[in-house]
Amino acid sequence: MESQATTRWVYSFGDGKAQGRADMKNLLGGKGANLAEMSNLGLPVPAGFTITTEVCTYYYANGRSYPADLKTQVEAALADVERSIGSRFGDAADPLLVSVRSGARASMPGMMDTVLNLGLNDETVRGLARRSGDERFAFDSYRRFIQMYGNVVLGVDHHHFEEILEHAKRDRDITLDTEMTSADWQAVVQDYKKAVAHALGRPFPQDVHEQLWGAIGAVFGSWMNQRAITYRRLHDIPADWGTAVNVQAMVFGNMGEDCATGVAFTRDPSTGENRFYGEYLVNAQGEDVVAGIRTPQHLTVAGKLANKSDLPAMEEVMPEVFAQLDAVRLRLERHYRDMQDIEFTVQQGKLYMLQTRTGKRTAAAALKIAVDLCAEGVVTREEAVRRIEPSSLDQLLHPTLDPKAQRTVIARGLPASPGAASGKLVFSADEAESLSEMGEAVILCRIETSPEDIHGMHAARGILTTRGGMTSHAAVVARGMGRACVAGAGELRVDYKGQTVMVRGVTIKAGDVVTIDGSTGEVMLGEVPTIQPELSGDFATLMGWADGIRRMRVRTNAETPLDARTAVRFGAEGIGLCRTEHMFFDTDRIVAVREMILAEDEAGRRAALAKIEPMQRRDFVELFGIMKGLPVTIRLLDPPLHEFLPNTEEEMAEVAAAAGIDAPRVRHRALQLHEANPMLGHRGCRLGISYPEIYEMQARAIFEAAVEVFRDSGETVTPEIMIPLVGSRKELDILKAVIDRVAGEVMQASGRRIDYLVGTMIELPRAALRAGDIAASAEFFSFGTNDLTQTTFGISRDDAASFLPDYQRHGILEHDPFVSLDQEGVGELVRLAVSRGRETRPDVKLGICGEHGGDPSSIRFCEQVGLDYVSCSPYRVPIARLAAAQATLAGERVGRD
Amino acid sequence: MESQATTRWVYSFGDGKAQGRADMKNLLGGKGANLAEMSNLGLPVPAGFTITTEVCTYYYANGRSYPADLKTQVEAALADVERSIGSRFGDAADPLLVSVRSGARASMPGMMDTVLNLGLNDETVRGLARRSGDERFAFDSYRRFIQMYGNVVLGVDHHHFEEILEHAKRDRDITLDTEMTSADWQAVVQDYKKAVAHALGRPFPQDVHEQLWGAIGAVFGSWMNQRAITYRRLHDIPADWGTAVNVQAMVFGNMGEDCATGVAFTRDPSTGENRFYGEYLVNAQGEDVVAGIRTPQHLTVAGKLANKSDLPAMEEVMPEVFAQLDAVRLRLERHYRDMQDIEFTVQQGKLYMLQTRTGKRTAAAALKIAVDLCAEGVVTREEAVRRIEPSSLDQLLHPTLDPKAQRTVIARGLPASPGAASGKLVFSADEAESLSEMGEAVILCRIETSPEDIHGMHAARGILTTRGGMTSHAAVVARGMGRACVAGAGELRVDYKGQTVMVRGVTIKAGDVVTIDGSTGEVMLGEVPTIQPELSGDFATLMGWADGIRRMRVRTNAETPLDARTAVRFGAEGIGLCRTEHMFFDTDRIVAVREMILAEDEAGRRAALAKIEPMQRRDFVELFGIMKGLPVTIRLLDPPLHEFLPNTEEEMAEVAAAAGIDAPRVRHRALQLHEANPMLGHRGCRLGISYPEIYEMQARAIFEAAVEVFRDSGETVTPEIMIPLVGSRKELDILKAVIDRVAGEVMQASGRRIDYLVGTMIELPRAALRAGDIAASAEFFSFGTNDLTQTTFGISRDDAASFLPDYQRHGILEHDPFVSLDQEGVGELVRLAVSRGRETRPDVKLGICGEHGGDPSSIRFCEQVGLDYVSCSPYRVPIARLAAAQATLAGERVGRD
Repeated sequence: MESQATTRWVYSFGDGKAQGRADMKNLLGGKGANLAEMSNLGLPVPAGFTITTEVCTYYYANGRSYPADLKTQVEAALADVERSIGSRFGDAADPLLVSVRSGARASMPGMMDTVLNLGLNDETVRGLARRSGDERFAFDSYRRFIQMYGNVVLGVDHHHFEEILEHAKRDRDITLDTEMTSADWQAVVQDYKKAVAHALGRPFPQDVHEQLWGAIGAVFGSWMNQRAITYRRLHDIPADWGTAVNVQAMVFGNMGEDCATGVAFTRDPSTGENRFYGEYLVNAQGEDVVAGIRTPQHLTVAGKLANKSDLPAMEEVMPEVFAQLDAVRLRLERHYRDMQDIEFTVQQGKLYMLQTRTGKRTAAAALKIAVDLCAEGVVTREEAVRRIEPSSLDQLLHPTLDPKAQRTVIARGLPASPGAASGKLVFSADEAESLSEMGEAVILCRIETSPEDIHGMHAARGILTTRGGMTSHAAVVARGMGRACVAGAGELRVDYKGQTVMVRGVTIKAGDVVTIDGSTGEVMLGEVPTIQPELSGDFATLMGWADGIRRMRVRTNAETPLDARTAVRFGAEGIGLCRTEHMFFDTDRIVAVREMILAEDEAGRRAALAKIEPMQRRDFVELFGIMKGLPVTIRLLDPPLHEFLPNTEEEMAEVAAAAGIDAPRVRHRALQLHEANPMLGHRGCRLGISYPEIYEMQARAIFEAAVEVFRDSGETVTPEIMIPLVGSRKELDILKAVIDRVAGEVMQASGRRIDYLVGTMIELPRAALRAGDIAASAEFFSFGTNDLTQTTFGISRDDAASFLPDYQRHGILEHDPFVSLDQEGVGELVRLAVSRGRETRPDVKLGICGEHGGDPSSIRFCEQVGLDYVSCSPYRVPIARLAAAQATLAGERVGRD
Repeated sequence: MESQATTRWVYSFGDGKAQGRADMKNLLGGKGANLAEMSNLGLPVPAGFTITTEVCTYYYANGRSYPADLKTQVEAALADVERSIGSRFGDAADPLLVSVRSGARASMPGMMDTVLNLGLNDETVRGLARRSGDERFAFDSYRRFIQMYGNVVLGVDHHHFEEILEHAKRDRDITLDTEMTSADWQAVVQDYKKAVAHALGRPFPQDVHEQLWGAIGAVFGSWMNQRAITYRRLHDIPADWGTAVNVQAMVFGNMGEDCATGVAFTRDPSTGENRFYGEYLVNAQGEDVVAGIRTPQHLTVAGKLANKSDLPAMEEVMPEVFAQLDAVRLRLERHYRDMQDIEFTVQQGKLYMLQTRTGKRTAAAALKIAVDLCAEGVVTREEAVRRIEPSSLDQLLHPTLDPKAQRTVIARGLPASPGAASGKLVFSADEAESLSEMGEAVILCRIETSPEDIHGMHAARGILTTRGGMTSHAAVVARGMGRACVAGAGELRVDYKGQTVMVRGVTIKAGDVVTIDGSTGEVMLGEVPTIQPELSGDFATLMGWADGIRRMRVRTNAETPLDARTAVRFGAEGIGLCRTEHMFFDTDRIVAVREMILAEDEAGRRAALAKIEPMQRRDFVELFGIMKGLPVTIRLLDPPLHEFLPNTEEEMAEVAAAAGIDAPRVRHRALQLHEANPMLGHRGCRLGISYPEIYEMQARAIFEAAVEVFRDSGETVTPEIMIPLVGSRKELDILKAVIDRVAGEVMQASGRRIDYLVGTMIELPRAALRAGDIAASAEFFSFGTNDLTQTTFGISRDDAASFLPDYQRHGILEHDPFVSLDQEGVGELVRLAVSRGRETRPDVKLGICGEHGGDPSSIRFCEQVGLDYVSCSPYRVPIARLAAAQATLAGERVGRD
């Protein structure tokens, strides 16, 4: 414990210098590090200090207590702030007021608690009144403080305060807060204090130091509130990062008409255009802008015109301060080399910077900003590639409204987050979540959203609000999540109780389908047809750079011509997984497939296979044609049998007729084939071992298709034939012999040589363990991480829904292991298989074809273990291309260090 | 290839010396090595030579061809034999005749081919006639040779020869072979040769060297015949061991009344008593004894009397030769330090030894022999322990007939293999196999058995033959397999076609239940009640020695009082797995259990649990009482849910009534709980995570039972509470917290301290991989190798029957991995978990509780990886005790080298 005496727990900033720096984010949190950095840049930052994230870690590791010397360090830092501001904390004559805010390593907007105006009590409020010359402001500040502190720190419910304010206004026949006089606020303060005392059984704390430590404790405590935990889970933020606490001298945007407060982006966060973009409110505190309660005004005249606003721009109202702010904007962007999201306050004509951070942006904006910054010489191509969040590309790949489609626009709001979405209207986050879990597309409609709604916003396809601007909670969160959002559609009248929304005389009920277009702000009745996005411009530029960087190839999982074509358009470099059983569900062939599966002997199977073979051959001819010589990995039949068994009497009769036997026999056989655990049953290569004629037919269809494609188009196809569910080398050897024999026969018959590879899925723990032996026969491995996850965890994906949520809630699983590869369990088997496989066969081709092939963090893992390619669903291909490039860059960085 | 020039492929023996030795079994096969050893001992062995097993390996590795210099070496060795015998191979005047026999490393009785009398042709047969002075004998030998060679080497079907012989006898109105004259045999020889020429399109080979190489090739070829492959699979003999070929000068037991042939055991193979035990036939060839065609005579007068035989004993007929043989018996036993199984021939009054090998014996005999030899000072206790095949103990543990039970004895045969068995009568091996696969107990009844019947004998509970003696095929094989066998029950008249057996006027049909007692030779109608065996005498002595040797403890898997008591009687040192869900199937509690599982909320579950808890507590009180302070590992509930769901309307109604809700709601909930793959579903600790109140109830029942047992009996119980299906440490942490809390509550309430351990099953690949982390919280690991095998292989045990046979047939799996641990796959995970677990917690207690805990080869593996105990079903406990001792000895041996 001796070492604690020398630990710095508190870092001061302000007055053009700071003890911290921007690169100390892990220790100071994002906000604290950037306040320090802005101080060092000489920007006008109110003095303050940051209590480090290490204190948070200490706090939770030591039964919510603080390091012994924290108090001394805070007191010293507070004295520095007093010196800088020239007023003293708790001084009845000239009180220093402070804000206390959280600041984690990663931005968690609105997730944790903030207290403003701290330092006010029955005495200091009079000092503030005297020093500001504005008694009304002082008591307004005091009542705000009591409300905020009462709620956040003391846990007194909001509604106590709201009721008092409502009554006060009703008694005075007043509707707007601004009509309240100083005396009115004083009366409210008295009532607030009574309410707190009543709720807590003790008076509101008058000791400013007690206030300060209460607020610090509340911020640390808020790290573990349910909202924060949910947010971290959704955004993959580890709980052990902790939050810092920033204590900073208050500046006031609500001291009069020469005061203002605002938030801004150094470039347009929606389109990425290089124009100053932001909103402000005169005579307001910062929270007023973000909360979306008053409709904010634009910073620039251009912004005002573009949005057809009647309210004057800051550029017009406060031209000098605006010019300062614009200079700060350029300074920050040059310094940080990225678009910034800033908060500022103007107190009596003087500009103060309260925050800067890298701004959230839409995917399209992210691409434009990255490409533009590269053109401006600010960042390199590698840096540009590194800056795009791969999964954000998803936003660009989804359909937009068909411009030619009929649409009934019933309302218009702000285009808060791009993309179009249709779905059933719901009015609560819980409803959104539960309907979505049942597979319904939903649009969540709220007057405004709050952090409590996060889970519903995540579950919804789109979000529609009737209040709030482009920087409202709904807008910011929707953009972050890539959900379409129309915000502030003020014409809509929401009736939560009646579960309806009225607009222009039309009543839309919960469950009715609506469409929103987050790129135009339009709200439409019914479902409107959509079209595929164009993948050109900045997207194409940046993806080109990514392609130039990445080491791993990107293939797709596809078997239908539509999927294959989509994937090629998205840049797929081959098919990594063609699931032949998926080709078997078409109504024109399912009967023959069932006939084959239900056959009682080889003759019966061969009869059914003879019907299927020409269809299979045509499938492959078409697929090879689309892929134009790109590699195609075809997995031979791997049906968990139950998926193919006939269920209804009608289906049984159909199969019976096709096979020329009676229905009871079909029923009997289906019963025989029923399995207790089909996932672990007679499937994969086990079927090939029992009934080699099935794989024989498929191999023949593949080779004959290759010959046909060459004959008709001159394209040489090198099929990669993949045996599923292998657990030992002998299985592979037996089936490879069948394939080799058929290949020989087709080559003999056609007189044409066919090159092909035979390889295996690695999707069982045993296959991973025996990879050294298996590689002696396998020319390639493809990691089937879906099944490998199922068997390694012993969890059936089909049945996991009943307990996986409990598991995530308890923190047993940080991520759904079927979405993001479990690196320490499943990943260890992959690493093991890679090294053992390569030891036996140094050039064994290695790929992954589970869902994880399209998940950026899993792709990073694939790069680390040195796979040759990833294969994913068509819509994930661009994400995989970018993630692979970033993984290469990350690897180089590691290599360089 | 140069090195081949120096490889010795052929080892000569005879004339009191040999190039080989008994310890060269791997190279020379068992028969060859022992012929060499007997030669070295100066015993009368006809000269010969052994072609090594390496030639067999070479043969199969090189497309069935021989090493280049084999021919020269064979010729040289043959010349030695000619010199020793004084006659020449192929010499028309005085021909040397040879036998050609297989001889693998492990005995495979009757599995491979043998050719006798080789060297006879149309010329040499006359030389043999002249030299022996017995033309009839010469032509009888020639016709035997043509038949044997024709069948074995040339592939001409038996029936061709049999028909000719039948015709010949019918034409001459003869019934016995002995009535055939020389002229008759000469005619048969002519017909045999014609038949061969007709079947093959070329004459029977007259060139004796061609004959010799044909026979050698046939023996090597027989290594891969279906019978041999099946036998190897059943007896775990690797295919790459190969067989040797023994070529040896013929001696004749059928040259007249001063000739004989016989087989003997140096001690009684059925009881182990130290008395010379064997059978012989005057004027016969060796195969006549083994084939069971003539009823053999006893060697000793004592044997004759004991078996109430009318035929004279060898001791009486040939006292001098018998005395020589008896001396050989003592010499061999002293030399080999174990009971020997010998074959001999007497040619014109002179004794020749043709084989010695360690004799097969019943388990009871094995115990007696080992204990006796130890008492005689011949072997050490360790050696005695090492000599008992653990799985053979099974024979001693199974019930014998209740002597007080009513029984209808309908026939009597030889007590050929001990133990009693009841089952449906079947008349073919195939029928035995197919009925047995359907779960029926069967008794296989045959006139006599042959190697083709092996699979049916294996499938049957007992074997009944109407012909043949104690050394007949049926008797030898049944003893080896531990199947009850009554042989030579001559009163029975079997009608294969009519599928009946008649005896004393009674007709028993296929499918009728009979009981046989292999210890008395009785055959009874219907099923006769049985009793438990006494485990005393030699058994207790040897098991005591084993217990003194073994390092690992042996526990049992048991939850019922009956099983627990049985296991304790068999020497279990604790319970390694008490499956609490097995306690839940009783009719008096299944409704409450279903009510719990179907409950829609915690309140509903708690209501049901309150009904179950007192019953659970009583279970544990009883179990702790039986186990008297021995450790008891209790696995908390691990139900694959589907096992508990109500299926019938009646069951649903019962549950609905108990829970006070309506049946449709129960049905709906049951449907909700249905899982696609219950093995990978919401089970094990996942249930505990979702519904901690279940584990809470169980923990409470355990701790309260411990307190109660102490209060009532003063016995201190240290429960080991085991969490199933853990995949990560956090699961364990969460549930351990629940258990610890309940323990605290019970201790507080009772005022008594309870020591207990909390540990986990390692039954998922992920658990094995994460064992280092899990061991931080787990005080013990128990390897659940059933589930670990399922998940590592991705094979559901319930569904494997549809393809595992294909897998064993194709040699993909050498053993059923659910019977014998897959050491290279599943075993690697076990090894990994052991080393990672110990690294974190050096004293973590390690055990195994899968079925493998009772399998000797798996137990050897457990010793190698250093587990602390194995746990198995009660009836496997003695097997495990012995196997564990042998594993310790094997480990010491490895350690010593």
